[in-house]
Amino acid sequence: MKILIVGGTGTIGQAVVKELQQRHTIIVAGRSHGDLQVDITNQTSIEKMFQSVKNLDAVIATTGTVHFAEFSAMTAEHYYIGLNSKLMGQVNLVLLGQHYLNEKGSFTLTSGILNHDPIRAGSSAAMVNGALDGFVKSAALELPNSLRINVVSPTVITESMADYGAYFRGFESVSAARVALAYSKSVEGLQTGQIYRVA
Amino acid sequence: MKILIVGGTGTIGQAVVKELQQRHTIIVAGRSHGDLQVDITNQTSIEKMFQSVKNLDAVIATTGTVHFAEFSAMTAEHYYIGLNSKLMGQVNLVLLGQHYLNEKGSFTLTSGILNHDPIRAGSSAAMVNGALDGFVKSAALELPNSLRINVVSPTVITESMADYGAYFRGFESVSAARVALAYSKSVEGLQTGQIYRVA
Repeated sequence: MKILIVGGTGTIGQAVVKELQQRHTIIVAGRSHGDLQVDITNQTSIEKMFQSVKNLDAVIATTGTVHFAEFSAMTAEHYYIGLNSKLMGQVNLVLLGQHYLNEKGSFTLTSGILNHDPIRAGSSAAMVNGALDGFVKSAALELPNSLRINVVSPTVITESMADYGAYFRGFESVSAARVALAYSKSVEGLQTGQIYRVA
Repeated sequence: MKILIVGGTGTIGQAVVKELQQRHTIIVAGRSHGDLQVDITNQTSIEKMFQSVKNLDAVIATTGTVHFAEFSAMTAEHYYIGLNSKLMGQVNLVLLGQHYLNEKGSFTLTSGILNHDPIRAGSSAAMVNGALDGFVKSAALELPNSLRINVVSPTVITESMADYGAYFRGFESVSAARVALAYSKSVEGLQTGQIYRVA
């Protein structure tokens, strides 16, 4: 398969590349690194990316920003950072990418555990993760050309604990390599509309 | 208690008023009707509403718009209708209202079943409902002054089946009066961070 990994230069993305490049042709897109550059908050940039790669079988998104801050410091504008980037950035990859994927191709998005297992400063992440989980369950019913869509919802990644450990005390982290298996299941299996929780 | 019901003129809102006015003082806010007018997509309008009512014990939101359309017709702009109205409109009621509510007061928001039980044309509703469910679970941890927050997630309402029945074939509807009980449980009970599914 020919697989585009948007965010393939990040912690999870690199592990997904490592897992899938053993069997498939991988194209990595990143904001500033990778084979291709893309700004997922910009529809024109996404469209340009898809026009430059032909014959795609799968799009994986391991990308997007949310604002972490204590609830007392959160404003509407802070919530829109996550809505515009991690939520609508990934959704735009689907809205635009559906017209470029090969028949029976797949989308695999990334949400996260915080809508089920909330933490301090995580209310925007909880909002965006819940939105992605709901979107994927619903969009799966209506995608054209037998396209599939799933979302991977991981807990905190072991490789990120040095940076984020203070927010996730008591959480059992998972390695990026273990999380990468869920992307493999999504891309190489036949399921659709699934939320793969890795915890 | 003194309870503000934003969207109290709608189908669910009217049933909530009927349930709660037996025991409490109710103020109804609506876009064009009710005791007070408010535009939940406008932070200044929300702030003005809260400044005009003193000594509030509870805020209930039964309001907000999402765009229903088949997935093939949905654009990013269509998703932002729901993000700006049903999602951030209700979230703004919490962000601004937390500074006006009495200690131990409560917020009760409204999501819906479609992120768990998706239908044709419902991908924006699924997104917004998932976002609200996630937000409420997380915000409950961090609200100040012992404030509580819950969300009611109803299936299709019997009174709305004449309008929406074609989208909900095979769904067992619930009466607005039964849905109203979940708002009573949220306001008059002590639970927080709960998603009350009524189906």
